[in-house]
This record gives sequence, structure tokens and C-alpha cells, in this order.
Amino acid sequence: MVNFKSDNEAPAHPAVLEAIIEANRDFATAYADDRYSCQLDARFSELFETECHVLPIATGTAANSIVLGELSPPWGAVMCHRSAHIHCDEGGAPEFYTHGAKLVPLDGDNARLDPDTLGQAIDSAGAHGVHNCKPSVVSITQASECGTSYRPEQVRALAEVAHARGLPLHMDGARFANAVAWLGCSPAEITWKAGVDVLSFGATKNGALTAEAVVVFGRPEWLEGLERRRKRGGHLLSKMRYVSAQLLAMLDNELWLEIARTANARAAELAAGIEASGVADLQWPVEVNEVFMRADPAVLQALKNQGFEFHIWPGFDDVARLVCTFATPEQQVQDFLAALRQNEAT
Amino acid sequence: MVNFKSDNEAPAHPAVLEAIIEANRDFATAYADDRYSCQLDARFSELFETECHVLPIATGTAANSIVLGELSPPWGAVMCHRSAHIHCDEGGAPEFYTHGAKLVPLDGDNARLDPDTLGQAIDSAGAHGVHNCKPSVVSITQASECGTSYRPEQVRALAEVAHARGLPLHMDGARFANAVAWLGCSPAEITWKAGVDVLSFGATKNGALTAEAVVVFGRPEWLEGLERRRKRGGHLLSKMRYVSAQLLAMLDNELWLEIARTANARAAELAAGIEASGVADLQWPVEVNEVFMRADPAVLQALKNQGFEFHIWPGFDDVARLVCTFATPEQQVQDFLAALRQNEAT
Amino acid sequence: MVNFKSDNEAPAHPAVLEAIIEANRDFATAYADDRYSCQLDARFSELFETECHVLPIATGTAANSIVLGELSPPWGAVMCHRSAHIHCDEGGAPEFYTHGAKLVPLDGDNARLDPDTLGQAIDSAGAHGVHNCKPSVVSITQASECGTSYRPEQVRALAEVAHARGLPLHMDGARFANAVAWLGCSPAEITWKAGVDVLSFGATKNGALTAEAVVVFGRPEWLEGLERRRKRGGHLLSKMRYVSAQLLAMLDNELWLEIARTANARAAELAAGIEASGVADLQWPVEVNEVFMRADPAVLQALKNQGFEFHIWPGFDDVARLVCTFATPEQQVQDFLAALRQNEAT
Amino acid sequence: MVNFKSDNEAPAHPAVLEAIIEANRDFATAYADDRYSCQLDARFSELFETECHVLPIATGTAANSIVLGELSPPWGAVMCHRSAHIHCDEGGAPEFYTHGAKLVPLDGDNARLDPDTLGQAIDSAGAHGVHNCKPSVVSITQASECGTSYRPEQVRALAEVAHARGLPLHMDGARFANAVAWLGCSPAEITWKAGVDVLSFGATKNGALTAEAVVVFGRPEWLEGLERRRKRGGHLLSKMRYVSAQLLAMLDNELWLEIARTANARAAELAAGIEASGVADLQWPVEVNEVFMRADPAVLQALKNQGFEFHIWPGFDDVARLVCTFATPEQQVQDFLAALRQNEAT
Repeated sequence: MVNFKSDNEAPAHPAVLEAIIEANRDFATAYADDRYSCQLDARFSELFETECHVLPIATGTAANSIVLGELSPPWGAVMCHRSAHIHCDEGGAPEFYTHGAKLVPLDGDNARLDPDTLGQAIDSAGAHGVHNCKPSVVSITQASECGTSYRPEQVRALAEVAHARGLPLHMDGARFANAVAWLGCSPAEITWKAGVDVLSFGATKNGALTAEAVVVFGRPEWLEGLERRRKRGGHLLSKMRYVSAQLLAMLDNELWLEIARTANARAAELAAGIEASGVADLQWPVEVNEVFMRADPAVLQALKNQGFEFHIWPGFDDVARLVCTFATPEQQVQDFLAALRQNEAT
Repeated sequence: MVNFKSDNEAPAHPAVLEAIIEANRDFATAYADDRYSCQLDARFSELFETECHVLPIATGTAANSIVLGELSPPWGAVMCHRSAHIHCDEGGAPEFYTHGAKLVPLDGDNARLDPDTLGQAIDSAGAHGVHNCKPSVVSITQASECGTSYRPEQVRALAEVAHARGLPLHMDGARFANAVAWLGCSPAEITWKAGVDVLSFGATKNGALTAEAVVVFGRPEWLEGLERRRKRGGHLLSKMRYVSAQLLAMLDNELWLEIARTANARAAELAAGIEASGVADLQWPVEVNEVFMRADPAVLQALKNQGFEFHIWPGFDDVARLVCTFATPEQQVQDFLAALRQNEAT
Repeated sequence: MVNFKSDNEAPAHPAVLEAIIEANRDFATAYADDRYSCQLDARFSELFETECHVLPIATGTAANSIVLGELSPPWGAVMCHRSAHIHCDEGGAPEFYTHGAKLVPLDGDNARLDPDTLGQAIDSAGAHGVHNCKPSVVSITQASECGTSYRPEQVRALAEVAHARGLPLHMDGARFANAVAWLGCSPAEITWKAGVDVLSFGATKNGALTAEAVVVFGRPEWLEGLERRRKRGGHLLSKMRYVSAQLLAMLDNELWLEIARTANARAAELAAGIEASGVADLQWPVEVNEVFMRADPAVLQALKNQGFEFHIWPGFDDVARLVCTFATPEQQVQDFLAALRQNEAT
Repeated sequence: MVNFKSDNEAPAHPAVLEAIIEANRDFATAYADDRYSCQLDARFSELFETECHVLPIATGTAANSIVLGELSPPWGAVMCHRSAHIHCDEGGAPEFYTHGAKLVPLDGDNARLDPDTLGQAIDSAGAHGVHNCKPSVVSITQASECGTSYRPEQVRALAEVAHARGLPLHMDGARFANAVAWLGCSPAEITWKAGVDVLSFGATKNGALTAEAVVVFGRPEWLEGLERRRKRGGHLLSKMRYVSAQLLAMLDNELWLEIARTANARAAELAAGIEASGVADLQWPVEVNEVFMRADPAVLQALKNQGFEFHIWPGFDDVARLVCTFATPEQQVQDFLAALRQNEAT
């Protein structure tokens, strides 16, 4: 079987596993007060070139939801793209952690929010005071749900719209590494320098076993609530060291970027082959490690029958999502493209 | 430093780590639909000699809280011992997952609930209908917060009180292995055969990196809610296989019991030495891997100054909690006892 | 000033006030166990020609939200029209009482849900299991937010779609009386006979001081949860008799329909005059007591300047909502139309 | 029947009813923006001799719970007396509105909190950081659940304990009028001058139909949250004028105190007669309109058989709670005492 289903299905990177083994050599203090967790603030501050506060968390859904719980009151409205993972795929976790905030789905090309749409939506959503939910936070996904990346100036434009109305900007960075690798900018340029107030830094999809981090840029007043919400959600692992050790391993020698670059490269090869195939084309621009291939449903089915695993994208019957990872062999990409081209021949 | 602070501070057992390494050899399906997670029902059913449904979950706080969320309506009252971890140590997680149920703390010797106290409390707590929170579930801790174990007949007596009033019985088994090892009974005898409806099966304190399991005995109608609540809490790990692989490793060759027996043995040695010391005695009977040692506060401080790490038990200034683990060297136990005895000499 | 702003701004009907005065003549049992509240089940059962269970509640927002809390789990999705009061105007109360369910706004002409749209939305919204919120209840507004009424066969078609998928059907009847008066059908025909499972029966907008009722058709298993949620929301008035007495007064001699017919008649006169004016026309068909008049914004402003009070409809700058009540003098309708026609002359 | 069951069972005072009739003479703006509601801040500021912000609310449970929701985070701990109405009688409403805060029941004579107990409880309850719920607010009941009144110096001592630890002080004043009438102090002296930050001002038990007010002393930063929570709880009545008119009527000519004095006087007569009877005595000092009479259970039953209605106090079989109201005829008090004395004779 050739697995293009999800970066969640790949194994962890050996260096990450080695870090866990290393962290297991001795006793360590419980509840994130260990020698690994205690390094996170400093190490992420170095990476982001500014003072950061970091909370390690096991899952991206929890990281996003704990952040939204802190940034939105229960009567708040979370402004996000119509396709946002927080809105479509987290089983109501953001509503749970916010105690019932409303997620407001907005339109925008290539799964990216548009500043004008955002501004109008914020202004109208809260126009009737207590009768409405109150716009409380803007959340964007980097890379987006259709595999595109916000450029720094795009983030900045959204941040300006949000901040002008008193709303903070959250970035769901489940594939942050892939976006940074593609953009070629610094982590700082695409986050706090562009106006991001808090980031869900993803590592699980990028070669960790299970490790994410909430990275807060210069808002220490949020920390108590974030920590309380993490505990209350059952996400303060007693042996947090094993999560933190994964994150530290990611930062060593820019492993996180190396993993992402490899995955992106596989996706670029796949995309190029698809475009050249004459059988299929690309639904959305390929910028990171996700390829959305549009093809005749019969072709998609034929590929599945040949053992290629991928998801048909919700709402479409002719779009396959193909996810590449650092662990995806180049040969599998070539095998897939060969199989795809055969469909033309038939 | 000699660490008697918590079983949460010990490293994981090598066999558990090996299982993770093994699980990392290939791609696997995400979100608990992998080949490890899919074995859990069968493997736990074998262990418990009855059909079980199992949800792997990363933390004990989450396992307990997700269960309570399913068993108690938001207006419910969770009947538990005054010292219960769910009431004292989980930062409000049970209240979060139940959407606001009230935890009703009850008295009981040696941190164990008493059937008469329980029955009267249930009957009086809900006597005024909608004006009261409604008793909805009984939760007991095995082993208890002071290191004692409920015997099967004690569990059965509580189950009868609960069931006669329509309440299910939950067992928080953060140290379930230690209790079973000490009782010498089968897992079945101390759970469903004694009336337990759902168990939080703990492995993290017993040599896992982070792995717990909710084990449901014969109540399939609870499964949808449990699964929804797990997702909604951000606890459905995309790479759940790494949790499930730990649990499976625990069940292989009764590793879970072997680890617990070792930890219990260290605690028994420690307890015997304390009783023989003439300097200190035991606050509560030592049955599992926790020793509550009562001594002059000056003695406790002296031991701390010599590098022995332990917690002073909340509410006491003369009781030290000493936790042993499978990884606690026998020599450290002897060193501690020698240091303790020296206090007498001085 | 001539007030077309809202039926909430009219005074209560004298007969309703008289009922309160009557209910105040003596002591009465507290917490809805009084001689007025205890009649409600029987009186509504008579009105609806079937066994009903009735909970008096002070506000429509609370009535709707308590119902939704009972019908939807916290991870549920409430299917409703894009313009639904529960989605747009209740400040997040449905999210609060459901503990975070997601309201899914759907399109539909004249603010009415369409069975095909509804069916497709339910089927797709929950397609990914625990990763989605689960469609749990369908809620429709009668009369709708743009003043149109669902016909019995329209309700039945929606009920069939909902019931076939295991979802109950809730009707928000803030203007139920106006709809029934206009339809000329029996209350039974437009509710349970057409598949409605539970109704928020509105009286406040229809001449009460503050009185609504949740009317449950043949689902006694919902009662405990409804009563618990009412208490928990702080809506079990100690002196509930004053709410129940209002409801009983409404049912006496069909006062509720008489009031609604009068309000509808004023709206019909207004609508006819608008259509004949040559200055403005009707945005949506006028069926109940709300008239949505489309006119040049300058005309609307001129009318406001002359002392006519009304709301500009959100999302439009050229649509005025004009609400008539039983207490709206015919002369005011004529005055308004005269003023409107003068705008043409100028 | 002679009704000593509850002040909730008495009719409303005629002047209150008259105010409702008066408020019904014309149209008025909806949602608490009417000419009655808009006077509340000024009128209560005059009464309390300081700037107040006032939210009218229909029920005391809602008033208390909305306040607690604003003052306590979801992970908070509400410190209150073991017998507090918020803990024992509100069906979990405080837990609902706080999104799951824990109510911490404390001991204290005569249902009053003790400063030392309170201070120790706050200090110990939160000693373990995120593992505990965080003490967030202190709530006291005036008059208390056993009919005693806090003196100004007692309130001040509690306020000092609370404020020194950063916690605000809430007063549940369901029987505030009775307490003020008995204390003979000014409303200011027993509230903000003694350190109370926010008061639930009760009128329903004191002769209103249904009317309470949240009175905030000098903390405008709480207003938005209070208003949002009121709306979200379904407690922003569209026709709020009818609640506000009741409150204004209460303040006119000190009606609220006159009503309370009358009720207190009846209770004092009752208490004196009981003490003189030789058949029964007083369980707690009688200070307001509640008399807790201790007598042989057979005597209590005999009185019930003779048509005297009252509640047996929970947790006791020999204590009757007898509540007097402004509408309790003196003759009924005498009849009761006569009947009581006859029990001695037999």
C-alpha cells in the first residue's frame, strides 16, 4: 500500500524517537516542571527572535481550543475561514473549550481569509450588542486547509483588521513548518512581526509522535488562563518531559524545517508530475506538502484499486488530497505518477 | 538525589519504550483506527474475562473526566471520597467535562468510601428534586489516595448501594495495578464482578510514558458519548497507536502486574524499616506503593536536607508521602532507612 | 410617536393583566406547583387535541435554549435557517444551554427551510463521525423571521427529513399565534400532526407581560431534562403562578387568537396601503403582523423624522420592518400610509 | 390553611401591582431600555449613597448565578457557607453560569461565615496551583439561611479576608430587606461601606411578583460580562419594564423596608410566643422573618394536621421553619401559638 492519506499516518522521525529514549534515562519532575519543559521558553524565544511563552500540548485540537478558550469569552464569535480545521474537523472542541463561542465561517479564495471580508464580518456580526455573539478573535490556518500559505503581508493585513477592532490574531500552525519552509522567511516574519499574537506550533504532522506547542508572543496576561485551561482539559501530562523532549529535538539543527522541506519536495514532485500527466490537474496551488489533484472520479477509483491510499476531499467527488511526508519514498511518488499516466493510456 | 516524590517521576519501563519503537516502523491509520488500537478491546476483554470496550487516553485526569462527563448530567452530583483525586487534584477537569456537575465529598476511613455513608448521602443529596444537584454516579479510587485498597467485598457493597439507587460505579484506577498486585485477586474480581461499571485503567504511574485506558464493562450505550467527549476534549490523538502500543506492551506477559509488584515490594521494605526504626511510624496501612510516614517535622526536614525527595502530605506537617516505583533501587530504600535511623541517634 | 418597532414594545392585553391581579388574591404554592401552573398540561392538551406537557418560562430565548439543550448533546449541530432568531438574536443562549452545540445556518427562501437543503445539510454535516459536530435537532421559526408562515405540508416535509435521520423537530413559535391566525388551521395541524415534537409557544409578543411555554408533544422522556435545565438556568420562578395565569388567560375564549388576528389585520391594512402607494413595496409576502417595506433610504429617513418608529432590517438599507400589534391603532396605520404617500408627492 | 411555608407563597404587595398596571399604559422600549429600567441606576445610587450599576433580573437564582459567573473563572472556587442557597438550593445554577466552578462549603455558626475559617480555607484550597480550583469569590447570604443577620463589622471582617487575597465579596440578599430592617443600619453601611462588591438585591420574597436586582458597587469593568451573561441566560426580558417598575415601586417611600418590617414583626411575635409556650423553643436566634422552631416531631405533625403549613428543615426532624410575610395576618400568628400551646395541655 502507498499511503498519501495524511501526515498523521507517517512514523515519527528517528531523531525524535531518540530524544524520547534519552529523556527516559532518569527520573524527572512531573507536570511540566522537568528539565526539558523548562527549556522551551528559551529555545522558542531564540527561534522566534523575541520573548515567547510556550505550553507543550499533546494534540493540535487541544492546542487550538485551549487558545481559543483563553481568547474568546463564552459569548464570543471566532472569525475563521469556512474550511478551517477548528470549524470543520475538531468535533466541537473549540466550542467546548470556549464554553460555547460561535465559530463564524467566512469565505476566501484558496482557504485564506480576505481582509475586506473579515473586516465587514466583524463589523456586522456584533452590531446588535448583547443580542449577538461578540467577535472576539480571528483564527487563520498556516498552511491553509487547501495547502496554500499566507504571505507575511497577507497575515499583516489581517492582523491590522483584527487589531483595529480589538481582536487578537491566532495562527493554527498544524503545518506551520511546511509553510515556513515554503515561504523561505523566518518564523518571526510570518508570526509576531506580521501581527500574530499566539501560534499553535505543530509538530505531530511533521515527524513527532505527538507534540504541539502553544507559543504566546508578548502577552503574559494570557498565561494563567492557558495553564488553567490546559490542566482542566486533562492536557497537563504528568510526564510532560516526553512531549517537550520531542519539541526540543525538533528545534535542534532545524530538524523541523528539514523534515518539512523533504515533505514539501515530495509534494512538488507529485504536483509537477500531475500537471504533466494530461490526466489530472491541480485544484489549488501546491505550496506545501498537500496536493489536491482533480481527476475523473473513475481515475481516482482506479488508483485506489491499485493500492494508492488517499482521501476524496469533502464536498468534491473529483478531488483527491495527496499528502506527502518526510517518510514518503520518492519511488512511491514516481509509482503514483506512473499509475496516473496509465489511466490516460486506457 | 533520591526520588520518592511520585511514580509520575520515574522513567518508563524499557519494554514500553520498545513497543513505541516497534510501532514506529511503518505508516499506520490515524485517530485510533490503527492495528494497535484495534486490538485493545480484545486484549482487555481477555484480561478482564468479559467483553470490554476500551478507549485509550493520554492522561488519567482526562480518562476520569471523560467518564464522569458521560455518566453524569450537568446537573448531577458525583459522590466521592473527600480526598478523591477527581475532587482535590484535577483542577476542575471533572466539572469541565461534566459541564458543571457538583462533586460531593464524603467521609470514610483510610480514604475509602463507606456504604452507609454513601447511601445516606445519596438519599439526602437529591431529596429536593430540581432544587438539588441529582446524585448521578459514584466514583472510588483503587488504590485509594492514602494507599489502601478496596477489597472485592467492599467494592461490591458500594456497588449495591449505588445500583439500588440507579447510579453507576466508576473506579479511578490510577494505581489499579498496584491494588490488584496487592490483593492477589483477578482483575475481574475487583471490577465488574464486584459491580464496577467503568474503570480508568492507569498505566502512566505504572511504567508507561503516557497511557491510560477507559475500560467499559457491558455498557455499549456509553460508547458514543465517550468517544465524542474524547474528541471534543482534544484527546483523540491522531497518532494514537503510540498510546495503544504502550497498553499492549503492558498486557504482554503480565508486565503491568510485574511492574506493580516490584513497586509494592519496595514500599513494603520501606514500611517495615520505618516501623522498626523507632523514629517514625505509618500514618495509614501500607498496601501498595505509597508509604505515608509520620515523623517529627524536624526529622522530615533533615531527610530532605540529606537529598531525599518526597512530598509533605497536604493538611499535615508531620506526614511524608514516599512513593516507590519499579525503578526505585533497593539500595535507595536502604539508604533512606539508614538516614532515618540516624535521626534517632541524634 | 408611532411605534412599529416591535410587538415587544406594546403593552399587555387588559385581560392578561386582570389574570395577574386575580392570581394575586391569595397565597399560592411556590415553584410552579400552584393552582395555575398545574392546569397548564390539561389546558394545552385540550387546545392541541393531544396529551401535552407544558413548562411555563418567562422568555422566548430561554424557552428555545432550554429545549435545544435537551434535544442536542454538547457536540450536536442544530440545523436552522440562516436568519433564525436562535442563531442571530439570542446572544449565544442556545450555545450556552447546549454546552456548546454548533448552530448550522442554512439557506431557504422567505426565511423558511427547504427539505432538500435540510436533508443534504444533515447528511454532509455529520459525515466524518467524531470529527464533526453531529446533527441533532432541526429548529424552524413559525412565523418566520421575515413574517412568512410555514404551511402544514411544509412542516410535514421537514419533519419527514428530520425524523428519517433520527432528529426531532423544534418549532420556535414566538409568533405562533399570528401564524395560526393567518393559516386558519388548528394548532394541532401545524404542530404535532405535521411532525413537530416540541414547540416554544410565545405569548409575550402577543399581549402577555412576559410568558412563554414549552409544549412537548408525546415525549415524556424529555421532561426531567427540561425541568432540570429550567431550574439550572434560573428560570423556575418561585412565583410562577403569575406566568401561568397569563398563559391561562390567553387560552380563555381564544384570546391568543383574537389578539393575533387583530395584529395581523393591522399589518394587512398596512401592506395593502404600501403596495398601493407607488412609493414603496413589500420585500416579502405579508402573512402575519410584520411588514417588510422596501423604499428609498431617504423615504425611510423622512418617515423616521416624522416620528414613525421602526427598525431598518439588518443587511439592508432600504428595508423597514413595521410590526403591528393588537394595540396598534388603526389611525396610526392610516397616518403612516398618508405620510408615506406624501413622499411620492415630494 | 395557614401558610408559613415561604415568603415566596405570599401575594405581591398592592403597590407593586399598581406599578405594573401603570407601566402597562403605553408602549415602551424593549430589552431594558425603557423609562423604568433607565431609572434604576440613579434610584439605587440614591438608596445606597454611592454610584451603583443595576441589572434587573427576574429570579434570585439567576441574579446570584450571573454574578458568580462574572466573578469566578470556570476553574474558580466559590467560598460559601455549607448551608448557602447557592450551594444547596439552586439546582446547580451557579455551576452552570460559572461553567463549572466548584462551590466550597464552609462551616460557621448560625449559618454565617467566620473570618478565620474563611481565610484558612482560601489559603489551603488553592495551595497546589493548577491542580486545584482557584479561590475566586466569597459569597455570603444576608439574612442567612437560618434567619440570622451579619452585622456590619462581621461583613467587614470577611471582606478584609477576601480582599487581602484578591477575592471580591458577593452578598446574596434574597432577604436583604429583612436584614436591613432588623439591623436598623443604612443599606450602605451593610454593603459597600463594609466591603461588599456586588449585591443580589431581593424583592420577590419581599412583596414583588418577580423582581431582583444585581447591584454593582463601583466596579464598572464587570458590567459588560454581567449584561452578556444575563442575555445568554435568557434573562434579558423583552418587556423588562415590568420588572423594573416593581423595583421602583419598592424604593418609593421605602416600601421595601416597610414590607420587611411588617414581616419581621410577625416573626418576632411568633418567636416570643414560642419561647413562652413551654412546648417548643427556638433553634436559632430570630432576627428577620424566619422562625426556626424546635419541637417534638409529634407536635409538629399535630400542627400540620390542624392546617398549619410549614417546612420541616432538611437534616432535622424536630425543627420547623415558619416564615412570616407582610401578608401574614396577626391573627394567624395568634392562632398558631394557641394551637401550639394546646399541645402542651394534651
